[in-house]
Amino acid sequence: MNKEKPVILITNDDGIKAKGIASLVEAVKDLGQIVVVSGDQSFSGMSHAITVKHPIYIKDLGVMDGVQYYRTNGTPVDCVKLALHTILDIHPDYILSGINHGSNSSISVHYSGTIGAAREGCLHGIPSVGFSLMSYDADADFEQSKQVVRSVFLKLLDEGLEPNTFLNVNIPDSPKLAGIKLCRQAKGKWQEKFLERVDPRGRKYYWLTGSYAGLEPEATDTDEYFLQKNYATVVPCIIDVTHFDTLKIKGDSYAL
Amino acid sequence: MNKEKPVILITNDDGIKAKGIASLVEAVKDLGQIVVVSGDQSFSGMSHAITVKHPIYIKDLGVMDGVQYYRTNGTPVDCVKLALHTILDIHPDYILSGINHGSNSSISVHYSGTIGAAREGCLHGIPSVGFSLMSYDADADFEQSKQVVRSVFLKLLDEGLEPNTFLNVNIPDSPKLAGIKLCRQAKGKWQEKFLERVDPRGRKYYWLTGSYAGLEPEATDTDEYFLQKNYATVVPCIIDVTHFDTLKIKGDSYAL
Repeated sequence: MNKEKPVILITNDDGIKAKGIASLVEAVKDLGQIVVVSGDQSFSGMSHAITVKHPIYIKDLGVMDGVQYYRTNGTPVDCVKLALHTILDIHPDYILSGINHGSNSSISVHYSGTIGAAREGCLHGIPSVGFSLMSYDADADFEQSKQVVRSVFLKLLDEGLEPNTFLNVNIPDSPKLAGIKLCRQAKGKWQEKFLERVDPRGRKYYWLTGSYAGLEPEATDTDEYFLQKNYATVVPCIIDVTHFDTLKIKGDSYAL
Repeated sequence: MNKEKPVILITNDDGIKAKGIASLVEAVKDLGQIVVVSGDQSFSGMSHAITVKHPIYIKDLGVMDGVQYYRTNGTPVDCVKLALHTILDIHPDYILSGINHGSNSSISVHYSGTIGAAREGCLHGIPSVGFSLMSYDADADFEQSKQVVRSVFLKLLDEGLEPNTFLNVNIPDSPKLAGIKLCRQAKGKWQEKFLERVDPRGRKYYWLTGSYAGLEPEATDTDEYFLQKNYATVVPCIIDVTHFDTLKIKGDSYAL
């Protein structure tokens, strides 16, 4: 692989056959040398998980339309690690993850496999972005999302990112996009409800379901606010999660 | 369940049979009503993952020594959600996770299932702490760790936490503890190396291995620094991962 164009590693958490990852490739294909490394199945909700209990296989699917494809049975974070350390003979210049089928705004940043991959890229010092469309439909319309991806990526090519940060981009599933806003992560919570059922052997089992509830409905500067106003949102995210205010307030005081 | 004593939910990512979770129970048993909800296997490296592709079972193991035990096939974050929404008829006052067999300092905060559970507690507004001992030995000596757990938890009972924060506590595996320090997360990276092997059918497969490399060896205020000096470390952690400096520098400027 030579370096005439930037090398862009693309992954996702919906698996290599998802419409979202094909749309992401289409959005940036002319802007770099694209390598796709993605899972053989959905890894939604896998957060920053890595695979430690079973080995990982890699299948080289070859080149299609100038794009090199690899399929693995690893999580999104595994895909990034495999790409960097085993698959590629060159460090990628950018890592793009998505386009996820479903929102990753607000606190969903912590559950998302899409964002896990972007965070992992950041941990390796590579400018990385996770993209999500607010539709869980397998056949969702990604045309507008592709424009947002391209716009955000062109800005990234031009300006770069602050050190040790990555981007969490969410895109409304609406035909009338109002624009793109850089903003903060909204405070919210998932209100879980477990569906209880009984299996054929008489044992109860549970399915996790839930709905998002915003915790700051008055705020006008959050991703949730702007998404409701039909803006795509860009939240710059950190990897150092220290709460420095606590250090200021408490000093280093602890006693055994 | 009545409220004479605080209700303490205990979970971990090494599974309900781990010595670490038994040690955590022992450390705080007299300070509250203890409910343990933990996995039927190890969920190391599962980060903040939730289970969405298969249903979850809960096994009521009954009361032993005044402690109620439940076993599930869910991740650490699932265990917290199940406890809050299905198992308990009362909201726990505190969530303690661990004691993990192995360090979760520096950027390991992002990979750790132990910390996932503590973060999930925080997302539900419950003061939560993840504890980790710097030994992967299944039969590690947790005596000193129990003292650290107790000391940190008594301080938590007394002072509480700043809103929307939780604690990541790491404990050296050394007989000579120098003390406990409140400090920041060190910058570092995992240098992965995939072991390549060939299965009986001739297919290559890979095991993830790696070693931690610090990125700020001169710093004297990080968890890595203090752990090397034989201090237990307490890093207060946030759930809002917005990089506010980027918002200040860039404003909300984006154009399609």
